[in-house]
Amino acid sequence: MPPPPVVIGLAGGTGSGKTTVANVIFSRAGAERLAYVPHDAYYRNRDDLPPALRAANNWDHPDALETDLMVAHVRALKAGQPVELPVYNFAAYARTGRTIHVEPKPIILVEGILIFADPRLRALFDMKIFVDTDADLRFIRRLQRDIAERGRTAESVITQYLATVRPMHLEFVEPSKRYADIIVPEGGRNEVAMEMIVARVKSVAGA
Amino acid sequence: MPPPPVVIGLAGGTGSGKTTVANVIFSRAGAERLAYVPHDAYYRNRDDLPPALRAANNWDHPDALETDLMVAHVRALKAGQPVELPVYNFAAYARTGRTIHVEPKPIILVEGILIFADPRLRALFDMKIFVDTDADLRFIRRLQRDIAERGRTAESVITQYLATVRPMHLEFVEPSKRYADIIVPEGGRNEVAMEMIVARVKSVAGA
Repeated sequence: MPPPPVVIGLAGGTGSGKTTVANVIFSRAGAERLAYVPHDAYYRNRDDLPPALRAANNWDHPDALETDLMVAHVRALKAGQPVELPVYNFAAYARTGRTIHVEPKPIILVEGILIFADPRLRALFDMKIFVDTDADLRFIRRLQRDIAERGRTAESVITQYLATVRPMHLEFVEPSKRYADIIVPEGGRNEVAMEMIVARVKSVAGA
Repeated sequence: MPPPPVVIGLAGGTGSGKTTVANVIFSRAGAERLAYVPHDAYYRNRDDLPPALRAANNWDHPDALETDLMVAHVRALKAGQPVELPVYNFAAYARTGRTIHVEPKPIILVEGILIFADPRLRALFDMKIFVDTDADLRFIRRLQRDIAERGRTAESVITQYLATVRPMHLEFVEPSKRYADIIVPEGGRNEVAMEMIVARVKSVAGA
């Protein structure tokens, strides 16, 4: 019988470098050995909101996400069952009808800003990694990303950041850092931390 | 030729749990493979101070330590040469004439509150670990230790803590956290972090 899968929780604020860390784990631990479950995929359908209200909605509050479904999926993967990961359309603020079939794997990587704020998710993680980057650097990265990839204006990024992103970070994300097993300053550019995480993941997952 | 030694820097405030982490590394990586260099051993001789002034001296300022000598020792161990670690008499605030002979080993563990505040030391570390524990818990541990092991009164521990320990922590220790490669919440009781550190140390040191 293979060893039970190792479930890694990877959290950190917007722009902290979580995705870079996830990519390092993928490439070094082996993408074929890994099931990836991003919290982002579980945004609730909000196509009921009038389009003018959608951008102003609080997308950073835990209630914006269907975490119940994510908990069920992580439990299923941990028990060796495949799941259907929802595919979200971020432009329409709606779930598409499509899903991605995710097979159980030796390593289950769960990623998201708010995943350590939920006690049911925390209880599922064998390893809790928090990527900690100074708030000004996180804002700058978000600003650059939203302008380059999402065609937003600087003013609209600032408005959203001050209205919801920052208050939710202080209320939910920052306090959840205390549940981390290790805190990684500056994310994926931190080679020593990356080597340490990958060495541990490989040894636990029998790679 | 054996691989060059791996030099680990282990920092964190008073009462953070650094020593517990060091003990875990000793016992799991193998004490016989490890050279231990605590910054505490390098306190300067202050038997020139009148006894009444000794307890009130600022023992938490970087100038209280002969870091030049420690830098020379870590460089020597890294280059494969043995060193003579000074032995300090904490009751007399003075170096004893004695030293401990320390042989070079595959793992060099450097420990201290202020070791990440010195750029020469930072440059020597292959792995920088900061043990991060809430200030109230750190104070409670220090209070318990100083009463139990050093026969101090609660009032004298509080006086020293407020006069020098806490201000020096805020000025030197806390800002040096940003140089860490990984931050370990709650020290040696954090089994996931311990396993991660030990896995990495063993793989680098070829154990």
